[in-house]
Amino acid sequence: MIKAAICGYGNLGKGVEAAMNESRDIQLTAVFTRRSPGTVKPVRDGVKVYSYADLPRFRGCFDVIVNCGGSATDLPVTTPEIASLFNVVDSFDNHSHIPEHLAAVGKAAEEGGNLALVSVGWDPGLFSLARLYMNAVLPDGSDYTFWGRGVSQGHSDAVRRIEGVADARQYTAPVEEAVERVRNGERPVLSAGEKHTRECYVVAKEGADTGRIREEIVNMPAYFADYKTTVHFISAEEMKRDHSGLPHGGSVIRTGSTRGGAESQRMEFSLKLDSNPGFTGSVLTAFARAVCRLRAEGKTGCVTAFDIPPVKLLPGEREDAVAHLL
Amino acid sequence: MIKAAICGYGNLGKGVEAAMNESRDIQLTAVFTRRSPGTVKPVRDGVKVYSYADLPRFRGCFDVIVNCGGSATDLPVTTPEIASLFNVVDSFDNHSHIPEHLAAVGKAAEEGGNLALVSVGWDPGLFSLARLYMNAVLPDGSDYTFWGRGVSQGHSDAVRRIEGVADARQYTAPVEEAVERVRNGERPVLSAGEKHTRECYVVAKEGADTGRIREEIVNMPAYFADYKTTVHFISAEEMKRDHSGLPHGGSVIRTGSTRGGAESQRMEFSLKLDSNPGFTGSVLTAFARAVCRLRAEGKTGCVTAFDIPPVKLLPGEREDAVAHLL
Repeated sequence: MIKAAICGYGNLGKGVEAAMNESRDIQLTAVFTRRSPGTVKPVRDGVKVYSYADLPRFRGCFDVIVNCGGSATDLPVTTPEIASLFNVVDSFDNHSHIPEHLAAVGKAAEEGGNLALVSVGWDPGLFSLARLYMNAVLPDGSDYTFWGRGVSQGHSDAVRRIEGVADARQYTAPVEEAVERVRNGERPVLSAGEKHTRECYVVAKEGADTGRIREEIVNMPAYFADYKTTVHFISAEEMKRDHSGLPHGGSVIRTGSTRGGAESQRMEFSLKLDSNPGFTGSVLTAFARAVCRLRAEGKTGCVTAFDIPPVKLLPGEREDAVAHLL
Repeated sequence: MIKAAICGYGNLGKGVEAAMNESRDIQLTAVFTRRSPGTVKPVRDGVKVYSYADLPRFRGCFDVIVNCGGSATDLPVTTPEIASLFNVVDSFDNHSHIPEHLAAVGKAAEEGGNLALVSVGWDPGLFSLARLYMNAVLPDGSDYTFWGRGVSQGHSDAVRRIEGVADARQYTAPVEEAVERVRNGERPVLSAGEKHTRECYVVAKEGADTGRIREEIVNMPAYFADYKTTVHFISAEEMKRDHSGLPHGGSVIRTGSTRGGAESQRMEFSLKLDSNPGFTGSVLTAFARAVCRLRAEGKTGCVTAFDIPPVKLLPGEREDAVAHLL
């Protein structure tokens, strides 16, 4: 039995907890939080809750920690801290900063004699793996990643920060016409706005100027200005009733050719998720298992999903995987 | 530069040759054949052709051999033979016999101090990897593999063996209604005939009884009797004009749930291939690269796609993969 702990008990931490509770070989034994430990109530009895500050006291007590903080400010600090003490997995998703995160975590992990795995979930994570396999087996091609339809937390937060907004939910959706062109093997060059649209559901504060809020949203640089953006004002009740889930999904598509362009070949990997944190938590749990196995084989430092022999992700024996899944 | 050779120069061998000719780090240096070597003409000058019987003379001359024989009778004999002398990759696709093939090849490879990788292509191969990752990250679920629409060589051969048949091509196609039910998350139990239909295009010999041929096809046990099978009689010219390609494809779909059934999650990996041997050859080439890299790290014996860290499949550096694909 793998003894695991979670750092951070938000949506993602609860998703990891649920996945571990359903796992046959991983036992969740503790949750570490920056909140007051008494306010956190894990689903199962017997799971202890401690302050994150006390984590160093527990060295040697857990086989792996799944770090469920945010990528913007938490993970760049806490994953190296944890990696110096424990094996650790995180879902750091700021793509352009992954190399420096990998280096920082790797240094801490090597110094602590531990193994860390960073940036796993579904993107980065399963989508990255799809891109890698597709590039490896079809070198002459183009890949496209489409996200959605699903809730983007970063964009929802950006709308919430606008004056007069009480609550907001932003859905990213692929432009179906673009997806069809890619599936047809056209290999088009597509701008950000040609690939995705953005839908905002906004609860305005009493008396707020909805016209001004709409203008601020659709003109917000980087977040919305380059996209076809629709804004719907709804009531707090409608928000709660219709938009309390965190669905997501998307597709990685690679179209290309073999035999010098004579043969068209297409690959696609897609996800349709009722719950982004539920699924991401389940992915993190599988990779936490792999980290424990590779550490037991002597590996230390920092790795990514690209470095993990796939069979290490399964709870069973290699022979069973070969017999039933190959 | 990896020095590679191919054993067998049929459709698949030519697909591997084409992929190697487009590769930046693999050089095809020789083809081994059981035919008279003078009858085999590789695409590029400088690629030597030798008799398969002469293979042992070349020990030490190649980094890896891609064995492109048939799974029924060739590969069970030749892959162990080659593994005793060289690193080797094959596409052995008789799913139920993979464990014994793995064991036989592993014994030969260990004795020879070589590394072998068996049963890679797209199924077994990429589809197997999809099944493994999907099972690992979504333990509570059901998976479904649909093949087609595409040419099944085994079924085409079975029809060709019927008396009065001059030529035949069999397409396997998924039952769209079944695919939709699976995509909708129903997790249905489906018989073979509920998942796939079979279409046969047959050129009858002059004067043959087409009614009898049709009956023999649709009632053939295992191959056709359990499926909705359609039979079309066409001319030799139509066969050549409309059915000379070897397209294929299909989907692996896993539908399941997280949080004790509260959240539905779906994953799908699909392929749409103009040319089955062109694509399979490209897959074998990527895994041949990985075999050379792992052997250089000291690994011997017999592995499958499940054992290969994905990053080993790419020609470039790990850092580039992390920066551009993760």
